[in-house]
Amino acid sequence: MIYFDSDYMVGAHPEVMKRLNETNHLHTPGYGRDRFTAEARRMILEACALPEGDVHFLEGGTQANLVVIDRLLDHNDGVLATDTAHINVHEAGAIEATGHKVIAIANENGKLTAEKIKKYVDDFYHDDTHRYMVRPAMVYISYPTELGTIYSRDELTAISQTCNDAGIPLYIDGARLAYGLAADGAELSLQEIASLCDVLYIGGTKCGTLFGEAVVTRKPELLPRFDSLIKLRGATLAKGRLLGVQFGTLFGGGLYFEIGRHGVEMAMNLKRVMMEKGYRLLIDSPTNQQFFILPNAKIDYLRREISFELWGPRGEQESAVRFVTDWSTTNEDIAKLAEML
Amino acid sequence: MIYFDSDYMVGAHPEVMKRLNETNHLHTPGYGRDRFTAEARRMILEACALPEGDVHFLEGGTQANLVVIDRLLDHNDGVLATDTAHINVHEAGAIEATGHKVIAIANENGKLTAEKIKKYVDDFYHDDTHRYMVRPAMVYISYPTELGTIYSRDELTAISQTCNDAGIPLYIDGARLAYGLAADGAELSLQEIASLCDVLYIGGTKCGTLFGEAVVTRKPELLPRFDSLIKLRGATLAKGRLLGVQFGTLFGGGLYFEIGRHGVEMAMNLKRVMMEKGYRLLIDSPTNQQFFILPNAKIDYLRREISFELWGPRGEQESAVRFVTDWSTTNEDIAKLAEML
Amino acid sequence: MIYFDSDYMVGAHPEVMKRLNETNHLHTPGYGRDRFTAEARRMILEACALPEGDVHFLEGGTQANLVVIDRLLDHNDGVLATDTAHINVHEAGAIEATGHKVIAIANENGKLTAEKIKKYVDDFYHDDTHRYMVRPAMVYISYPTELGTIYSRDELTAISQTCNDAGIPLYIDGARLAYGLAADGAELSLQEIASLCDVLYIGGTKCGTLFGEAVVTRKPELLPRFDSLIKLRGATLAKGRLLGVQFGTLFGGGLYFEIGRHGVEMAMNLKRVMMEKGYRLLIDSPTNQQFFILPNAKIDYLRREISFELWGPRGEQESAVRFVTDWSTTNEDIAKLAEML
Amino acid sequence: MIYFDSDYMVGAHPEVMKRLNETNHLHTPGYGRDRFTAEARRMILEACALPEGDVHFLEGGTQANLVVIDRLLDHNDGVLATDTAHINVHEAGAIEATGHKVIAIANENGKLTAEKIKKYVDDFYHDDTHRYMVRPAMVYISYPTELGTIYSRDELTAISQTCNDAGIPLYIDGARLAYGLAADGAELSLQEIASLCDVLYIGGTKCGTLFGEAVVTRKPELLPRFDSLIKLRGATLAKGRLLGVQFGTLFGGGLYFEIGRHGVEMAMNLKRVMMEKGYRLLIDSPTNQQFFILPNAKIDYLRREISFELWGPRGEQESAVRFVTDWSTTNEDIAKLAEML
Repeated sequence: MIYFDSDYMVGAHPEVMKRLNETNHLHTPGYGRDRFTAEARRMILEACALPEGDVHFLEGGTQANLVVIDRLLDHNDGVLATDTAHINVHEAGAIEATGHKVIAIANENGKLTAEKIKKYVDDFYHDDTHRYMVRPAMVYISYPTELGTIYSRDELTAISQTCNDAGIPLYIDGARLAYGLAADGAELSLQEIASLCDVLYIGGTKCGTLFGEAVVTRKPELLPRFDSLIKLRGATLAKGRLLGVQFGTLFGGGLYFEIGRHGVEMAMNLKRVMMEKGYRLLIDSPTNQQFFILPNAKIDYLRREISFELWGPRGEQESAVRFVTDWSTTNEDIAKLAEML
Repeated sequence: MIYFDSDYMVGAHPEVMKRLNETNHLHTPGYGRDRFTAEARRMILEACALPEGDVHFLEGGTQANLVVIDRLLDHNDGVLATDTAHINVHEAGAIEATGHKVIAIANENGKLTAEKIKKYVDDFYHDDTHRYMVRPAMVYISYPTELGTIYSRDELTAISQTCNDAGIPLYIDGARLAYGLAADGAELSLQEIASLCDVLYIGGTKCGTLFGEAVVTRKPELLPRFDSLIKLRGATLAKGRLLGVQFGTLFGGGLYFEIGRHGVEMAMNLKRVMMEKGYRLLIDSPTNQQFFILPNAKIDYLRREISFELWGPRGEQESAVRFVTDWSTTNEDIAKLAEML
Repeated sequence: MIYFDSDYMVGAHPEVMKRLNETNHLHTPGYGRDRFTAEARRMILEACALPEGDVHFLEGGTQANLVVIDRLLDHNDGVLATDTAHINVHEAGAIEATGHKVIAIANENGKLTAEKIKKYVDDFYHDDTHRYMVRPAMVYISYPTELGTIYSRDELTAISQTCNDAGIPLYIDGARLAYGLAADGAELSLQEIASLCDVLYIGGTKCGTLFGEAVVTRKPELLPRFDSLIKLRGATLAKGRLLGVQFGTLFGGGLYFEIGRHGVEMAMNLKRVMMEKGYRLLIDSPTNQQFFILPNAKIDYLRREISFELWGPRGEQESAVRFVTDWSTTNEDIAKLAEML
Repeated sequence: MIYFDSDYMVGAHPEVMKRLNETNHLHTPGYGRDRFTAEARRMILEACALPEGDVHFLEGGTQANLVVIDRLLDHNDGVLATDTAHINVHEAGAIEATGHKVIAIANENGKLTAEKIKKYVDDFYHDDTHRYMVRPAMVYISYPTELGTIYSRDELTAISQTCNDAGIPLYIDGARLAYGLAADGAELSLQEIASLCDVLYIGGTKCGTLFGEAVVTRKPELLPRFDSLIKLRGATLAKGRLLGVQFGTLFGGGLYFEIGRHGVEMAMNLKRVMMEKGYRLLIDSPTNQQFFILPNAKIDYLRREISFELWGPRGEQESAVRFVTDWSTTNEDIAKLAEML
């Protein structure tokens, strides 16, 4: 069986695993006060060119989202996001459970736009009753988006500027950031992205680690007493160095970027194979998530040996499907798929 | 340097690490729907003799506590616990953040008593204004306790009966359960403990895994829609099989119990060494946490080569200290300590 | 100055005020355990033909909504409502602050439809990932709606049936219920409405009292321990009898219905005057809220002597406006308006 | 029947009722943006000698407490209070429901002490693990206390200074403040109290109004966006002027202080009568709540014609009881009691 279901179906990249093994017998202080975590923090800030910034490591994406968003918002504030945003759809109401509204705005190819943000904020403040409404107090976007798309430099700059003008922070969910950085046609570097937003989480789980996400901010004062809030949500890892060791491996020598490039290369090969066989794209994604429309008969046939995700029916004869690549995807996997198409 | 600070300063037991390596390249469904998780669940239920029960795997102890307690309580309910309970002292207000009061009751050697539970509940219902008070609606105890002590069979049976009579669930935090089962003088087996409470969490982090806790219940109906609630709190591990693989290793062949026995053996050796040198116990613990009162000068001297936790001053010349053992503690470590005492 | 801004700008109906004066010197038990509250409860249940039902009195509408919705929902559940619903727009995030998502659905003339509810619920359960999504677990509608419209018997019956089929409760916000019952073309009686939903709040504030809303349910078991939850939210009135006295006056002899009829009669007169003068309706409301499109110059002129609400610009020359009537509106008020139009 | 059960069993003081009647037919803007509310705010700030301060009106005490405390605390913060504090005992967990721990400290005659506050805060910051503990971030006291006692000038000054040194706000629950100001031996004026704390709520419900509490602060910046937070909790009164009218009556000509004096005079008469008959005090209260120990037989006899609160058994033959006076208590009531003693 070959697996294209998602990018969290396999363990860690062998280099990461190797470092976990090498450090397994060491004794270090708990809760992230160890040297591996300190070093990983330093490496990430260097990679982001944010010498004055700070990094906090958490275990998973929903956790990172809920702790960051709850920290950035005041009482009665909401977070602007697309209707397709992970926080709006697939986190079981985690944001609302912290007391905050996700203000959903219709997406454009999975993306928010500066115009829509500006309009929402302007309309809000022009409403005489706004003190009895949920205040739009931060913006959440994902990069790449839930549909695999990415923002151009102009798009992200405009969003960043709009947030800045409105005095509200911009938070980027980078669960699959490695693939966004390596995307076909990507204009934005990690340093640019990190400087255009206020808080960014760099995903590990889908980009080479067993688990773990790094929350990076260029303005540490935005996340006061963040360690206590992480603990409050049960998100403090006792053996915190595991996060440091893993992220240190990713960022010590460029492995993170390499994983991104590999995933995207495999995804582009996969897309090419599909298109050569005449299958249509559901959306044109330049990253490691690829969406196609396939005949149901073909889907049934493929599933004998290839695993992937059904994304919903498209009429009676066809369905949308998602294929995802990661560090473990090989050219042999793609060849096998090509053979069966 | 030799480390006795805590039982979460080292990586996973080598057997656990070995299984993580062996399974690293496999692809499996995410979120705990894999075969390793299913198998670990089966093993744990067998070890607990709860064929009709259920197991949920979470990443850490505070997380397990907050998700379980929030699930078991209705609006305006509180949880009875000792004043020294981890949920009352060291979880940063995690339980209150879910909206519930921790009703703290003075401990006796770190323990709650059936009498105190009964008195609190009786007094509550005899108070005419009780519908405007926080309802005592569940009991939390830790086994072993935060002070390393354990409950006798009579004590736990009485608590269980009292909870049952009051119609409120009993929840046991077993962060260090392995050491409680192997404790010097322990009367209770895992099966007995699991049957005397309604929900139990079996700790992995401090007993041989990298991370992870197994929430076990003999009454699955007590935790309805628990998967959604776990996700809501950001506590769902994407690569959920990591928990299954680790707990499967612990419970597949008795490793969990062996780790407990080793930790307690080391702790008893350590206690003996201390007492032979004439140092006093702060509390007489039969498990892997040992508390002593040492002269400050001796503490300073030891700390050159041995790391342990200061538990607070006792007068001007002495302090209480905590030494903790785990799977990685060796007789050489104890010998080195003896040499320096 | 004549006021049409809203229906909460004047005090209580003289009959209500009279009873408050008459009972002011009496001593009665607090927190709603008095005879006036008991009597008002009985009267309301009789008016609703719900002898087995229950009534709880609260102080305001947002309060009633947040306490009821929080009570009806389980963890990770959301409430379906229109995008224009009061709970979605004008309660400052009160529902989210209790941890629950308002699932907003595009309104049709301010209304939800059975079809949309059914589709949302069906789609949810057909989604393989639904256990990580917010469960649609109750429906909120307002009667009349925020746009003044009302549901026909067929419409409400279909919604009620759909909710019943889906096993989720239907909750009706009746802040302006009196005007809905008396609406031009209204098909539904109080008894029908109360029997078609699971929980209903009958508004007092906008229908003749100083403050206060009566939460009615035909299934008391849906609101277990509701008194404690009301207190938890700070919504328990110490001098609880004030609610009983006021609602007893409204429901003791038909005053509630009379107030509704008077408000609607005035509103219909006002609408007639506007239409005779050639002004367009923004929406055709049969209740006490009337929405028109007026030239901005006319608006400026009217505002010299008449107060009403600007509802937002409609192009450069015109704006939407809202006029609201209540028990205190007189034919002289309408005549004065007519004169200035 | 004569009633001494509590101070919320009767309606409003006749002067308050008179003003409500006189203003009932007026139309004013809602939500507290009316001239009566503005005027009451001005009067209260003048009475408190806080020209730079601010006042917010809420409906009830639990509501005021939960909104203020939630506003003053950051995530993971707790509020220090006595074990007998209303927020710790009789508000159904309202504070915890906003996510915050009530840190209960053993009371001394119903009071907190500066020493205990200082010790708790010092111990907290000396604990190495404090970032995983609940931060003591504000102090709550009631004046008078739940046991009727009051703080001396030295006591309150010391508490105020301690809070100031620790950088945490002091909040005073003045549900019965009028009686505290008029207490036998009271050293503190309203102006002193208002200047020694950061936020104070001046109770109306128990001191002459139908309902309502005025939250006063000398530092408006401590309560940012407070209107939105009040709405979020469902605590915004639509006909907000009712609060303004009532508090304007209390503070327009000294009525508030007069009510306090009357209540205390009646309470002192009542105490004298009890002591003359040889009954013991449970606690020596100088305010309108009086606690005695009476023989059970006498209690049964009195209850034929006099209503008061049982405070709990004291041995087999006696019980503690509470008698409360208010604006409606008369010398005839006391004489009747004396006659039956």
